[in-house]
Amino acid sequence: MPGFLRRLLPREEDFYDLFVKQAVNIQAGSSALVEMLAHYTGVPEQASSIKAIEHAGDEITHNIFTKLNQSFVTPFDREDIHELCSKLDDVLDLIDAGASRFVLYRVDSVRSGTIELAKILQDTTKEVGAAIHALNKPDHVLKHCIEINRLENESDRLCRTLIAQLFDEEKDSVQIIKWKEIFEVIETAVDKCEDVANVIETITLKNA
Amino acid sequence: MPGFLRRLLPREEDFYDLFVKQAVNIQAGSSALVEMLAHYTGVPEQASSIKAIEHAGDEITHNIFTKLNQSFVTPFDREDIHELCSKLDDVLDLIDAGASRFVLYRVDSVRSGTIELAKILQDTTKEVGAAIHALNKPDHVLKHCIEINRLENESDRLCRTLIAQLFDEEKDSVQIIKWKEIFEVIETAVDKCEDVANVIETITLKNA
Amino acid sequence: MPGFLRRLLPREEDFYDLFVKQAVNIQAGSSALVEMLAHYTGVPEQASSIKAIEHAGDEITHNIFTKLNQSFVTPFDREDIHELCSKLDDVLDLIDAGASRFVLYRVDSVRSGTIELAKILQDTTKEVGAAIHALNKPDHVLKHCIEINRLENESDRLCRTLIAQLFDEEKDSVQIIKWKEIFEVIETAVDKCEDVANVIETITLKNA
Repeated sequence: MPGFLRRLLPREEDFYDLFVKQAVNIQAGSSALVEMLAHYTGVPEQASSIKAIEHAGDEITHNIFTKLNQSFVTPFDREDIHELCSKLDDVLDLIDAGASRFVLYRVDSVRSGTIELAKILQDTTKEVGAAIHALNKPDHVLKHCIEINRLENESDRLCRTLIAQLFDEEKDSVQIIKWKEIFEVIETAVDKCEDVANVIETITLKNA
Repeated sequence: MPGFLRRLLPREEDFYDLFVKQAVNIQAGSSALVEMLAHYTGVPEQASSIKAIEHAGDEITHNIFTKLNQSFVTPFDREDIHELCSKLDDVLDLIDAGASRFVLYRVDSVRSGTIELAKILQDTTKEVGAAIHALNKPDHVLKHCIEINRLENESDRLCRTLIAQLFDEEKDSVQIIKWKEIFEVIETAVDKCEDVANVIETITLKNA
Repeated sequence: MPGFLRRLLPREEDFYDLFVKQAVNIQAGSSALVEMLAHYTGVPEQASSIKAIEHAGDEITHNIFTKLNQSFVTPFDREDIHELCSKLDDVLDLIDAGASRFVLYRVDSVRSGTIELAKILQDTTKEVGAAIHALNKPDHVLKHCIEINRLENESDRLCRTLIAQLFDEEKDSVQIIKWKEIFEVIETAVDKCEDVANVIETITLKNA
């Protein structure tokens, strides 16, 4: 959208700023998860910090929905703003769900491969941030969406490998139940980033 | 919507009546689940009654969709009616899924905490009923939605506690698999009530 | 839509052709899954072929989305095309997820009942194909949608029976975890076919 139009529609800025804020929040969440796995002490406290990030995200989600319902003019199609907001919220919920499992399941030590999976999530959330920043520079959106798709395939492969290893190596079925879910929750967070990328791609193509 | 308009558009009444009917049905389902857990005998028969409630709900869902597709004028945005109807249907499906697990998994006795979780679901469906009744008194909607959100947080906390206890206390991994799923299905039913509340809030804000 | 209009709007043909192509692809996927279970040798290779079908489906999905975003005029409501395309993609993802579990979980032999479940999925995808073919002959759509609903109920019942049997017969909880998921993934593929039927029904009623 050309600059003069943006000046005429100040509300567009607000949505854009809120989405950027949420993207920053999600990156903070995924980074805190990687940090927690890398320095696995004081885990309940670290998980609480991630929960606080998720609560902050709920606020932003609520602000976007309220603004959406009150705005007569929106910068993109109403349903795309709603969808983008929901999917970003899903990513954050899953980051928190992943972190909280370590406390809930009293996980003593982190299985090898878990940090790698969380780092793919972290990389993916960085690309989500870049794609959202690029919402007003449509030419730069696509490369970030392609990279998100690539990272999602990578996380899917790693998750499958980790679960196969888990079944091969772990004899305690309770541990299998706990770790299978942890891997799947982190991988689902990456999946939801791909959903975000799909919405962003749709918005960009519609406004091309 | 002012009364004179409602008289001009009798179909609005029909949607409202159908949603109220579905809300009553959902409350019947969650109450029957609490009843089954409190008087844990003749479980297959009690689960069948809940299945019958779910079938009655499918009828109502189908009626709403048919009416929606045939109506030229709708009282709220078409996609919001569709979404509200789908989410109410999801709640009922999950109540039935929860009840049927006790038969399917040949559960002998009910673990402590299960009734409390089902009672939160029952309370939440009561609030859903109140929120739907209030669709034509928008000033009363918000307080019910806030209460639904509060109950959802409560059920989430209780579900996490019950699952942590399950892993701590239960040594039989087959029991862990069965009960973890039962708790999660009931908690997901409450989650879907929150989805219902979100749609109702959206409808109310749009029509404010 | 009458024939003369279709001639004026060649793009409609394109959407129709792409959906038919995806329906054919999904039938190929479910047939390959039945084949793999019936002739349970060279499983990794057979699962790879199903993965290839899923990749071909991703291409079609991407083509539909691109066309949707670039088309000014669409034969049905934009959001219904999007929904139909997404749900068909979900079916294919779940067929692939089901097939890949046999490799991932190093499944030695196929439990009795699994082929029956996969055959219901195969029958359901045939009906999905018929329903999509009938998109331009609306009078024939409904019977296929009714049949899809019947098959979904059948698969749901069989899946529940198989899981109950699994808990009754299998003492190894690791096997329970693996097979419960396999049954649920196949059943969820049938569920998604029902979602497809619901979208097709909506499209037909709107255009009646």
